[in-house]
Parts: sequence; structure tokens; C-alpha cells
Amino acid sequence: MSTQPLRIGLFGFGVVGQGLYHVLTQTDGLQAEVVRICVKDTAKQRPIASDVITYNGDEILLDPSINVVVELINDSDFAFDIVCRAMRQGKAVVSANKKLIATRLPELLALQHETGVPFLYEASTGGSIPIIRNLEEYYDTDHLHRIEGIVNGTTNYILSSLQASTSSSYQDALSQAQALGFAESDPTSDTEGFDAAYKTTILATHGFGVVAHPSDVVRRGISAIRGFDVDVAQRHWSSIKLVSRIVRSGNSVSLVTLPAFVSRKSHLAHVSGANNAIALTTDFADVQCLFGKGAGSRPTASAVLSDLSLIRDKYRYAYRRLRRSSGLTLDQRVTVSVYVRASDEQLEALPFLSVQTDHRGVEGRYIIGSMRLDELQQSTAYADRDAFVALYLED
Amino acid sequence: MSTQPLRIGLFGFGVVGQGLYHVLTQTDGLQAEVVRICVKDTAKQRPIASDVITYNGDEILLDPSINVVVELINDSDFAFDIVCRAMRQGKAVVSANKKLIATRLPELLALQHETGVPFLYEASTGGSIPIIRNLEEYYDTDHLHRIEGIVNGTTNYILSSLQASTSSSYQDALSQAQALGFAESDPTSDTEGFDAAYKTTILATHGFGVVAHPSDVVRRGISAIRGFDVDVAQRHWSSIKLVSRIVRSGNSVSLVTLPAFVSRKSHLAHVSGANNAIALTTDFADVQCLFGKGAGSRPTASAVLSDLSLIRDKYRYAYRRLRRSSGLTLDQRVTVSVYVRASDEQLEALPFLSVQTDHRGVEGRYIIGSMRLDELQQSTAYADRDAFVALYLED
Repeated sequence: MSTQPLRIGLFGFGVVGQGLYHVLTQTDGLQAEVVRICVKDTAKQRPIASDVITYNGDEILLDPSINVVVELINDSDFAFDIVCRAMRQGKAVVSANKKLIATRLPELLALQHETGVPFLYEASTGGSIPIIRNLEEYYDTDHLHRIEGIVNGTTNYILSSLQASTSSSYQDALSQAQALGFAESDPTSDTEGFDAAYKTTILATHGFGVVAHPSDVVRRGISAIRGFDVDVAQRHWSSIKLVSRIVRSGNSVSLVTLPAFVSRKSHLAHVSGANNAIALTTDFADVQCLFGKGAGSRPTASAVLSDLSLIRDKYRYAYRRLRRSSGLTLDQRVTVSVYVRASDEQLEALPFLSVQTDHRGVEGRYIIGSMRLDELQQSTAYADRDAFVALYLED
Repeated sequence: MSTQPLRIGLFGFGVVGQGLYHVLTQTDGLQAEVVRICVKDTAKQRPIASDVITYNGDEILLDPSINVVVELINDSDFAFDIVCRAMRQGKAVVSANKKLIATRLPELLALQHETGVPFLYEASTGGSIPIIRNLEEYYDTDHLHRIEGIVNGTTNYILSSLQASTSSSYQDALSQAQALGFAESDPTSDTEGFDAAYKTTILATHGFGVVAHPSDVVRRGISAIRGFDVDVAQRHWSSIKLVSRIVRSGNSVSLVTLPAFVSRKSHLAHVSGANNAIALTTDFADVQCLFGKGAGSRPTASAVLSDLSLIRDKYRYAYRRLRRSSGLTLDQRVTVSVYVRASDEQLEALPFLSVQTDHRGVEGRYIIGSMRLDELQQSTAYADRDAFVALYLED
């Protein structure tokens, strides 16, 4: 196979960009060179030779010697512009930008179709875990029933430290995560589940051939959690995790990113710190689970590196499930088991189909029972930022 | 991409063969048909139409309309003959035969080179876990330090049931596994670690580019285990697992299949029953772990199915690490931590470099300490079938 050396133009030189730069200098076997790096901030000192740095994206996008663009910036609108221009110039693109991919997927699919250029994004979902590749290739012939994963390292770090020492509050655990660099100064995208919902959307495309928008995901974050909820989970032999869950039922799928009581018998219960894990339930292979670092400079760079090696091999995502047009539709009218800790009034207004536990104590009241997901979403408890709503997963 | 329908000739119609046959009737997207099935026993009743069955391999091997041979028989010498003839006829081959692949790899590599025909064997190692694919493709650009896995479902089933109820003996646990179909009537290949050593050899090739023979693996089985050893492991907050372990150190690798004390903090400790798991430690991605069903009709068939879909896409293993000829050599002169329960005389003859614990009690004596692997292998304790030797893995 004739392989052209990869001449890379890199957008963004933050944690992942620097990780990639260093990893590329340490790996053999992949003939790849970072030719130019485009950054925004002209004032910032950079740890590399200045002749590689540019502040003008055209120096990458219009350079015909550059055949691959790696896009690692935060701004998803600007990233979209870069990706479009690069692909129209015939440059392969690797991105780690989950917001970009989840929110603009129809346009990005059309762009791949129009240009015939590879657009790969393994690093966008599950950090170093090769989930997109495996869904595309390995599990393509098996019937997938469910994807269930911990795909946000920040919230898993916070929830792990909260559950390791029951004394600390959510706010303490968040502050500690921020101090250690596991959470941003504005943590909303992580703690309210937006980041995990982007990834849920991407998993739905590759796992089930469904093109959804992140707003289609039933999403709620972890910030309402209290020590009380942690205690209840422990009494139920469970851990509380932020779980992204895609379940197929007949010809429809439901998409969820919610806190969940996860049984200690489950793989996901043992995923601690900033790690990620994704469990797949299929017809033939049964349950498979992939575990790995969900974030960080080198783990994320390793996923980018793996995409680069695929580009060397002229690989493109086939989106086979999408092309087969399985006719799956989104439907949130499914019955789920939930734990809700809320006010008496809110709890009594909830349309439970059945109640397993109705606990009233001096510290608070909660109900565990089953309910339609769409009806939960429309309830006043769900809308209340102080109420804690979690899936109750028994297996 | 133009894709020829897959016309399959199947050798062997046991548990996996029947699983594949049924799975193929249930999956869409893969245009594949089992045209003919070659079996040995003319007397046995088969659950399928007799016109598909043949007792003459030539009806598959010499049929030009058959473009894929799936080899699922037990006899590795006969399997080698089938594979050679099929590939020389230009037929792609899928095999699940770990003994065949591990013991005849140099010839099978030459045959792939000579014929240019795909020879895929994902089902040979780790059951449904896509480990070979991921080592070939995804982790190719990362630096692998270590592969550590539970790759034999039978011994994991026996060890799990032994450790769940400390009252039962090894013999009870084995009999129970045999009664439930998790162990063969002659369990030697599983219980003495031969099966796991074959898989260790295969992992070494795809992970480290090393062509080893199963006899190069430092191998010992689980049959010497007693309740006493289980109790010690529990006091050390560990589980005993049969672990296959390939560790790179500088320019050499060591290959081991031994019982091991696995810390409960480790992923492998939580792998129960007939499941498999493989943990990879790499430079960039850090620790990744893949978990799944290690055996069984449909899980194994799902791995064969996935190979078939690769054949449709004209995929061949690239053996990149082998071709890069990293110059890694086998070297068992590495220091390991071990637990040895043996007679006083045997223990005192062991060349420990350091001793962490020397426990003498009424029930027996054991030493935990460090030693060179090659020296352990030459000791009288190692040769004694009643002594229990295990790695002592602390992380």
C-alpha cells in the first residue's frame, strides 16, 4: 500500500493539542509531522518553536502541502467553519469536538458525502476508548439492544469523591475537582450533563443509525445530589453515576443522560475517578464492556493518533447502520424505574405506574417506582433544580 | 465498494458452528450463506437439512463457488491441512482454533504471504472480545507495555465458584463446571493452562510483534489450588485468577500463564464466571480494559461473524508490529512477585531475592516474595503438582 506521509495542520494547542504534539514525536510507524499550529491568543507563551505557530488559519487551510487538519479548539461554530473549509480543500479532518459533531451531524454527513474526504472523531466520545471504531466495524453485524456508559470524566470524578467520603457536599467535591483540574471554572457543560448528551447523540448514530440532536436526549445533571441520596444508594447496594443510555425497543430508541443508581454487580459501578466505560448489550456477543481513561492530554491524544493512522490507511466511517436505514425512530414514551427525592407536593404529582418504595423520613422523602420517561420529563419535580432524579437500574 | 456475496463452506458443526449457522440466519447487512457443512461423524443426527451436510472436505475445498472457509474443528493438525488447502485455492479462511494458530504461526504467516488470502481468527482469543482487531488497528500507534488478561472461561468459572463458597474443593468446583458444560470431560487443556497459553502466544504476536511457541510461555494451571490458598488471597484483599501476562521490559518480553493473586482494586478481580477480560497498559492511552463473554455458542459465533464482515471488506491482518521488526526478544529472566505454598524443603530451596511474608501455620506454609521467573520455573516447588504457585500482582 502506498502511503503518503501525513502533513498535519493543527488548530488549537491546549491540553490535547500539546499531548498530540508530544505523542507524535514519540511514536514510530506513523509517518506524520505537525507542519503548522494555528492558535488564537497572540500573547501566550508556547512551549514550541515559534515558526510552527500561526494566528492565521489560512496558512493551514490554503497550504496544499498539508493533507490533514486536526481540529482541537473549543468553539464549535468556529470549528465547523474550519472543518468545512478543510474538507472542501480535500484535506482529511480529525476532530475531538463532541459539541460540533453532535449538533451539526446532518451537515457533517452531507459534507463527507459531497467531498469524499475522511472525517474521524474517535476522541470525541469515551476519551481513549475505541468505541466509535468498534461500533462501526466490530459490532456492525450484531444486533445492538443497548448502550450504557459513563462518558463524562468530570462528573464521575465528582461522584466518586462524594461517595468515597460521605461527609463532603456536592459543592466541596466540585471545588476539589476544579482545584485538581478535573472540572472547568464554569462546570455547567459537564455537571448538567450537556457534554454527556453530546456523546449520547454520537453513540446513537454509530450504534443505531439514528441522527438525533442533543436536545432530543432526556438530560439532567448531578448538581442536585445530596448526602441523603448517596446514603440511600448505598443502602440499595448501588453507586450513583451519570449514565448515558440508549435503549432500543422494537423500532424505536430512547436517549437518556441522567444520574442513575447502578447496582454494584454492574461493571459501571466500579468505574472510579475520571475514567469512562461503555457497556454494549447485543444479541450474539451478549454484554461487552470497554473501559479506559475518559479524558486527559495523552489518552485523548492517543485516540487522535489512532484516527491519524486510519487516515493513512484511507479509512472512512461507513455509517452502515445509517445507510441501511433501519427505520428506527426516537421515542421517549418508554417505562423506566426511577428514584425521585423531592417535595411532598412534587412527589404526589408524579405519574407513577407503580411504586416500589415510598420513604418518608426527617431528612427527606423519596419514591422509587416506574414511570413513563416522557411524563417524568414534564413533571414539576424534574423541572426543580433542588429535586434529585435518577434512573434506578437493577441489573 | 463492490462486494461479492460470501459463500461459506463450514468445517465442524459443534457448539460454535451451530451458533454461527443460526446467527447468520438472523443477521441482516451481511450477504452470507452457508453453502456446505463438512462433518466427521456420519451417524450423528443434525438439526439441519441433510443436503447441506457432507462428509467429504473436497466438496468444499474444490467447489469454486465457495469463497470462504470457516474452520471450527478441534483437531489442530487436520485443521492445518484444511486451512492450507483452502488458502491455496484462493479461499479466505476464518478460524477459531487457538491451538492451530499458536503452534503453527510461522507456517500460517508464510501461507498468508504466499497466497495473499485473508486468514482471520478473532474468535480464537478472548471469545467475543475484539482484542485482535483492536491490537492490530487501534493500539498500533501506541506503545504497549503490558497485556494482562483472563482468557480462559473454564478456569475462571471454576475459580469463581471456588472463591464464592470457600467450603467446596477444587474437585467439587471442577465437577460442577463439568456438569454445567463449562468444562470438558478431560479438562486438562483448560485447567493446566494450555488453552490460555495458546492465547498468550497469539496476543504476543499482535501486541508485540513476537512469534513465540506456546512452549515458550511459563505456564502452570490451577489444579493444585486449595481452600488454604483461597483464604490467604482473601486476607490479602485479592482474588485468585488464571492470568495470561505479557510484559515488555526494554527490548524483551516475558510470556506467562499462571494463577495470580489479583488485587480487588484491579479490573480483573471483578471478572466472574465464564467471562474474559483483557487489560492493556500503553504509553499514551494508559490502562484500557475490554470485557466480554469468553466462550459459548453465540458469543464465539459473533466473533466469527465479525471476521466474515471484514472479509467482505477485503480486510487482512497487517501484522504491522511484526513487520516493523521491533527486535523484541523473549526473555524470562525477569523478577516477579510470587506466592508459593509448598513443603518446607521446597520453599527453602527457592531462590527468593527478597521475602515479604514467610507464614508457617498448622495448615501449611507459604512464602510471598520476589524471584526471577526463570529460576522459579526450574525449582522443585514449580515441578510439584501439589504445590501452589501464583503471581502476586499488587496493582
